[in-house]
Amino acid sequence: MSAQIIAIDAMGGDFGPRSIVQASIACLSATPSLHLTLVGQPSLLEDLIAGQSAADRSRLQVVAASEVIGMDERPSQALRGKPDSSMRVALELLRDGKAQACVSAGNTGALMALSRYVLKTLPGVDRPAMVAAIPTQTGYCQLLDLGANVDCSAEHLYQFAVMGSVAAQALGVYRPRVALLNIGTEDIKGNQQVKLAASLLQNARGLNYIGFVEGDGLYRGEADVVVCDGFVGNILLKSSEGLATMIGARIQALFRQGVFARMAGAMAMPLLKRLQADLAPARHNGASFLGLQGIVIKSHGSAGVQGFQSAIQRALIEIQEDLPQRLHGRLEDLLL
Amino acid sequence: MSAQIIAIDAMGGDFGPRSIVQASIACLSATPSLHLTLVGQPSLLEDLIAGQSAADRSRLQVVAASEVIGMDERPSQALRGKPDSSMRVALELLRDGKAQACVSAGNTGALMALSRYVLKTLPGVDRPAMVAAIPTQTGYCQLLDLGANVDCSAEHLYQFAVMGSVAAQALGVYRPRVALLNIGTEDIKGNQQVKLAASLLQNARGLNYIGFVEGDGLYRGEADVVVCDGFVGNILLKSSEGLATMIGARIQALFRQGVFARMAGAMAMPLLKRLQADLAPARHNGASFLGLQGIVIKSHGSAGVQGFQSAIQRALIEIQEDLPQRLHGRLEDLLL
Repeated sequence: MSAQIIAIDAMGGDFGPRSIVQASIACLSATPSLHLTLVGQPSLLEDLIAGQSAADRSRLQVVAASEVIGMDERPSQALRGKPDSSMRVALELLRDGKAQACVSAGNTGALMALSRYVLKTLPGVDRPAMVAAIPTQTGYCQLLDLGANVDCSAEHLYQFAVMGSVAAQALGVYRPRVALLNIGTEDIKGNQQVKLAASLLQNARGLNYIGFVEGDGLYRGEADVVVCDGFVGNILLKSSEGLATMIGARIQALFRQGVFARMAGAMAMPLLKRLQADLAPARHNGASFLGLQGIVIKSHGSAGVQGFQSAIQRALIEIQEDLPQRLHGRLEDLLL
Repeated sequence: MSAQIIAIDAMGGDFGPRSIVQASIACLSATPSLHLTLVGQPSLLEDLIAGQSAADRSRLQVVAASEVIGMDERPSQALRGKPDSSMRVALELLRDGKAQACVSAGNTGALMALSRYVLKTLPGVDRPAMVAAIPTQTGYCQLLDLGANVDCSAEHLYQFAVMGSVAAQALGVYRPRVALLNIGTEDIKGNQQVKLAASLLQNARGLNYIGFVEGDGLYRGEADVVVCDGFVGNILLKSSEGLATMIGARIQALFRQGVFARMAGAMAMPLLKRLQADLAPARHNGASFLGLQGIVIKSHGSAGVQGFQSAIQRALIEIQEDLPQRLHGRLEDLLL
């Protein structure tokens, strides 16, 4: 296998550069063909690297960037006001062929705006989408868009469906079942965009479109790719995270009520912890931006070391599968 | 306490009249001041009542309706094509003052369309909304709209906020915290309708509007009333139901893996079952239609006997609190 080079925005995220450096060095140890370029404040990053044992410096480079984009900053501000941000410099490394993917835990809106500006979208794609794997009763489904596009036309939803299908195939799903998220499964249900997107998808060649799926159907595993606008997708993702957290907290509370419950709790807790980790894959594995001329992975802002490692792993898979090129070919077939 | 009379659409729902009759008779036993009018096919209903012991017939009436609205029927069809449906006749009893509330487990879209047509909306209300109590880390929040209104303007969201606040007060919440569901908490986030609704709500007198809440914030209990359009609300509600079911199934599966896990599972299962019941209140307690000139409760189509009983209980509370009249007063203050 040839070498992979990934540019890391080392300054983004709620947890700071320390965890990112730690995750990066762990990934280098695990994957001998991997090279990483950490982008950010050089003295800070060099100090953090020096503090870690076993960093293979032949595969770990630091590139300077003098500015950092805040988690609350407006995308427009990030785009115009900070030409030397760590996020932007990392994306420029990708654009210039000095890296094959970019990973950031920073401000999502800024990352999307900068990605579009620096990398540009693939021909035929109006708007890139954000996708993540959501656990279901039977495996996983790719849910998109997760918040990059608040208002979407039927054509946008159609493009998301095509991109989601290609991404699912790249991740190993044979003939992915593609569905539109809706509030009912009958033809008359839903808003105009969804109904119109359904008629576009019914006529799409070579796409395994299976119709509408409801919120509960998603978790029953009725589809491999579930398409919605970014407002709905973001609400679904975050409310699911919130509910899973609440259920975890309630279970822990139940298991504190009395001696009998405490015993059951002590026995059950390791099992439940495993389940909880499985239920927050977006937090753990990061989300992928689809439709750009390059691979960009957004690690969850509040993910820890392990979350950032998983995001780098996802970038590696997309490099190996040459996802943007596959998308490009498929989109040419279907959209142009 | 004076008598309450509730009209029951005895033919609706996935589980059929048998469960509805059973639930009705149980409610009559529990509440001596309650009178019920079962609407549907008389011979069928009389047979079912005769099959139950201890039915106090002095408080249980049967009213004939020759037609039934199917669960998949279009609202327009239900409205025009079936003048003698059990749902419609039950609503007409309410309109004519022969009942103080109506409960149905039938087709949601048809129930909303018929309710609007037969009862009319309160002055100042463009569209009634569907609300249910959702469990949170700190208690419950009233979530609306849950699917009655797919596309909503800022004014509709504003009206939902007012109605949700009054409903929460009627249920005993002092100065309910009202929030708009959004994909971020900063002012710049969200679609046009949500941003515009926020500016309307900021200027509303006497409403405890606290700003935006995200999907996870809802489950953290950050608000007592959470407002969104019916598309988003329905997706949130159903995906939450689906996720809770999936977590339950996964926990059961975990607890079957090996002897040790089986022991933990046997001890934990009663606790987990209690939790699961608590997590599906919409299924168990029914949803309320707000903004009509009358009390209409929608019991979940797939709720069992207990679910229908809870829906009747919710109707009783709304009768005691005179919810439509309270809503009317508050809406006059705020909207007109």
